[in-house]
Amino acid sequence: MDLYDKVLELSRRRGFFWPSFEIYGGVGGFIDLGPLGSKMMWKLKNHWRDFFVRLEGLLEVITPVITPSRVFEASGHVEHFRDPMVTCLSCTKKFRADQLLEEVVGKGFEGKPLETIDSFIEERDVRCPECGGKLSKSEFFTTMFKTTIGPYSEEVGYGRPEAAQGMFLDFKRVYETAREKLPLGIAQIGRAMRNEISPRQGPIRLREFTIMEFEFFLDPENPRCERLSSIEKMEVTLLPSVVREKGGEEPVKIALRKAVEEGFIASEWLAYFMGKSVKFLEQLGINPEDQRFEEKLPSERAHYSLQTFDLQVKLDRWGWTEVAGFAYRGDYDLKRHALYSKADMEIFKAYEKPVEKVTRTLHPVEGEVVRLFGEQARLVLEKLRKVDPEEAHRQLSEQGFIKLGEFTIPASCVVQEEKKIKETGKRFIPHVVEPSFGAERLLYAVLEKAYSIKEGRVVLRIPSFLSPYDAAVFPLVSKNGIDDYAYKLSQQLLHQGFDVFYDEKGSIGRRYARADEAGIPAAITVDYQTMQDDTVTVRDRDSWSQIRVNVKRLDKYLIDLLNRNKRIE
Amino acid sequence: MDLYDKVLELSRRRGFFWPSFEIYGGVGGFIDLGPLGSKMMWKLKNHWRDFFVRLEGLLEVITPVITPSRVFEASGHVEHFRDPMVTCLSCTKKFRADQLLEEVVGKGFEGKPLETIDSFIEERDVRCPECGGKLSKSEFFTTMFKTTIGPYSEEVGYGRPEAAQGMFLDFKRVYETAREKLPLGIAQIGRAMRNEISPRQGPIRLREFTIMEFEFFLDPENPRCERLSSIEKMEVTLLPSVVREKGGEEPVKIALRKAVEEGFIASEWLAYFMGKSVKFLEQLGINPEDQRFEEKLPSERAHYSLQTFDLQVKLDRWGWTEVAGFAYRGDYDLKRHALYSKADMEIFKAYEKPVEKVTRTLHPVEGEVVRLFGEQARLVLEKLRKVDPEEAHRQLSEQGFIKLGEFTIPASCVVQEEKKIKETGKRFIPHVVEPSFGAERLLYAVLEKAYSIKEGRVVLRIPSFLSPYDAAVFPLVSKNGIDDYAYKLSQQLLHQGFDVFYDEKGSIGRRYARADEAGIPAAITVDYQTMQDDTVTVRDRDSWSQIRVNVKRLDKYLIDLLNRNKRIE
Repeated sequence: MDLYDKVLELSRRRGFFWPSFEIYGGVGGFIDLGPLGSKMMWKLKNHWRDFFVRLEGLLEVITPVITPSRVFEASGHVEHFRDPMVTCLSCTKKFRADQLLEEVVGKGFEGKPLETIDSFIEERDVRCPECGGKLSKSEFFTTMFKTTIGPYSEEVGYGRPEAAQGMFLDFKRVYETAREKLPLGIAQIGRAMRNEISPRQGPIRLREFTIMEFEFFLDPENPRCERLSSIEKMEVTLLPSVVREKGGEEPVKIALRKAVEEGFIASEWLAYFMGKSVKFLEQLGINPEDQRFEEKLPSERAHYSLQTFDLQVKLDRWGWTEVAGFAYRGDYDLKRHALYSKADMEIFKAYEKPVEKVTRTLHPVEGEVVRLFGEQARLVLEKLRKVDPEEAHRQLSEQGFIKLGEFTIPASCVVQEEKKIKETGKRFIPHVVEPSFGAERLLYAVLEKAYSIKEGRVVLRIPSFLSPYDAAVFPLVSKNGIDDYAYKLSQQLLHQGFDVFYDEKGSIGRRYARADEAGIPAAITVDYQTMQDDTVTVRDRDSWSQIRVNVKRLDKYLIDLLNRNKRIE
Repeated sequence: MDLYDKVLELSRRRGFFWPSFEIYGGVGGFIDLGPLGSKMMWKLKNHWRDFFVRLEGLLEVITPVITPSRVFEASGHVEHFRDPMVTCLSCTKKFRADQLLEEVVGKGFEGKPLETIDSFIEERDVRCPECGGKLSKSEFFTTMFKTTIGPYSEEVGYGRPEAAQGMFLDFKRVYETAREKLPLGIAQIGRAMRNEISPRQGPIRLREFTIMEFEFFLDPENPRCERLSSIEKMEVTLLPSVVREKGGEEPVKIALRKAVEEGFIASEWLAYFMGKSVKFLEQLGINPEDQRFEEKLPSERAHYSLQTFDLQVKLDRWGWTEVAGFAYRGDYDLKRHALYSKADMEIFKAYEKPVEKVTRTLHPVEGEVVRLFGEQARLVLEKLRKVDPEEAHRQLSEQGFIKLGEFTIPASCVVQEEKKIKETGKRFIPHVVEPSFGAERLLYAVLEKAYSIKEGRVVLRIPSFLSPYDAAVFPLVSKNGIDDYAYKLSQQLLHQGFDVFYDEKGSIGRRYARADEAGIPAAITVDYQTMQDDTVTVRDRDSWSQIRVNVKRLDKYLIDLLNRNKRIE
């Protein structure tokens, strides 16, 4: 059993997660979160909201999963959101072609054209991994779930593959409620769906998952991120596309500011959120040494992206695995929706003070042209009507005449008109930086990193604020009023707001072991001494050390414990 | 403008919610929650989890929205989850037939057969409400979103119309992780989808919404709910089906315990959760006088339910509107999944001590039968082989012989064998009580009930713990360091965990008005005096009264304010 199998076994047995629809034989790409996993998921989402939404001042929206087709026609997903697929001509099984080839020859088939895939299959005689049969030519399969909205069959809809489009559609409304200021970040946490061809990696490749992402709208003429200075010296590990293109695998360790200055990261805001994300993952118990940013090659990038980094975490079985993506989407999405919906997606930027602009027009003086050019006057007049008034003005002020082709036209042939206009601002489409996190993958990574063995027993060292339960309460024995005392204490802690797990069955050692497996940071035992002096034993999950705490100070003790590793600044 | 229109106007302008896909002309039955609505939604979900999941000790799961068809074949949804539909023969528009008729003649068409609908349309010559055209015969439309899972077209899936089935499928696993005890409550909060034919009521009838529900599994032989005693005297308003069947509309006000004793509510647990739900809604600001339980008639009930109550809230435009449902699902779902999946859905209940059971067998003594009955011996032997050994034993011990038809058979004709077996318990399928809440409807109801006018201005009196922001921070003026002080104070409160709204634009009166419209319970103003003594003005949203609080005590002041109406016991 490798670490992945161990985490899966624990998760299934204790209730973190397991495959969905198990009693019907299961369907690939779906998992259920059990009681412990659900609690962690809520805490993970709440922490993300705290860390990004509340503290970075983002505004949140909740938009539907089901989305009409025209939205994804505009966004380019109907055209581009697809994977190459091959079918076994003998057993009729279908496979994602690029992944199949990557299993045969290693990386390098993501985003490659069908012809490349087909010729490779022919050359190397790649066969069906299930039955050894010959494979069909590859074709594209749209990896969105398709449905119909309402009773009319032409009203096609899709399950959204990202939460982003809902935020783009809402941009103008949110911008208005936020009193029309940039930068503006819109966030969304919700379900997303990808109809994968043949998912086979448990919680890593899901057909339905929880996405936590935000679209950060900024003025491309004012790309400065003041906040970057607070973390600019922080070093991150990058695997830039320029290195990857040459076949390199050696990452660069570089400070965030320097990475922007040297052109590795396209935007200060992108760099800032990348740095913050490393800190966020660190709070979840994922060491920065186990994190790196892989820049996607142009052929691997989504159709909307100008630059993309995958934030990868090193996992035991799956190697470097994407848990978050950072895309510079430019003005792609808003522009496309403006084009497809005819809605105005531009915003107005007021200049600090109005800018005076001069516009000129040029009027030929016909009589003078006829007098000077005779038979060629018509030709000259025509040329004068077409000339750019600004160019004519420049020539007149520099040389006193206008030279148009072979003609030299003196100032007396034209009248210049000048209008002064005050422009109070300009209209433009904002640019977008998008950080996007996969919650289930993060959850799995947290579990894998937290999995440890102490004296032959599993201890799940989850950061205490993410732990399914804040504390366990155990009566040492179920008699002499000790169980009543313990039950009341657990109820009191519940009403004080803690997530408490009460258990009176089995030896105290067995109960500690169960608590360790569930990652519960504190186990509180009520014993004979408690009945005398109202103190309880609090056992620490990680060190197994025990101290006695008065029940009156228990809430404060737990609050400190739960915040222990929440804020790493 | 009625209250509904006013709430909609405010919601759109300030960012609680608005129609989805607006820039593409909108699609009925979908709404987006804006920045204020999203924050309220998170707080509503967290409060529901707190109130039901944490304090009632439920266990939570998160299961997929996309569900393979066989699950909904087993659950009966593929067969029953459908609405009658008619098509206009002239403009081809489609309508939900029962609702169309209800608009014409009032209530009473829910769950009626197609023939009833068709003959009514013919009799009354009901026409298309859009163009006046003739209507088609009615047909059923399955109101689930249909899709395909993966690349094989036969792998049909649906978007779940309720979160329940995921919990039923997981019952055995959760039961095991919870150490095999009943009662056991499994909860889920998540998205659900109903492909309505023609939804036209904004946030009230949605094609995609957030469901908060739990399945409470209990032993039908041990239906007692100890917790009911804590609220048994609480009176609720019921509109029982026995009253409705006679055409009555007059509700009954009755204590919970009495409602169970008199047979109005089928289960103590159902009654308990109904009572708790009234309290839950009260905490959200919905007065118990505006709440009632309407029992559904058999024809209106879902196919799985033995008894159903809708918890209805009185709304200004929509009248009594369902915001939660309470169904006694019996063993329907687990039994069906056992049947369709062949999985064992029974659980084992150990008796307190093993029960000794005697099983008997009866062996005819052929020789003796032949001797006594001669020619009829074959007939007697046949009868003896078919007789119930228990019945034979009873007769033999009571009267010394067995009377079978016309034959009187003496004890000498048979040998009785007796086996003693110890049964340690029995196997059975639990029964289920299901409370289910629609989060968006609740959210709308909260907004409508909170909407009030004070001196011509809108004040949204949302319970403070549900308010999008905990507090607003305003500098009185943007100079003399007052704005810096205020900004730092807002950052400090943010880092202490509060949701803070900072605003320095516009007159202080305008800013107060904006805060009132957003339902922000406290507005903190930093002024000249603050610079002297570190006190700020805290203005109360509801009373508009102002007091001065030292910034050092501000966190404690806010915590008290936020908990003000959270616990009503």
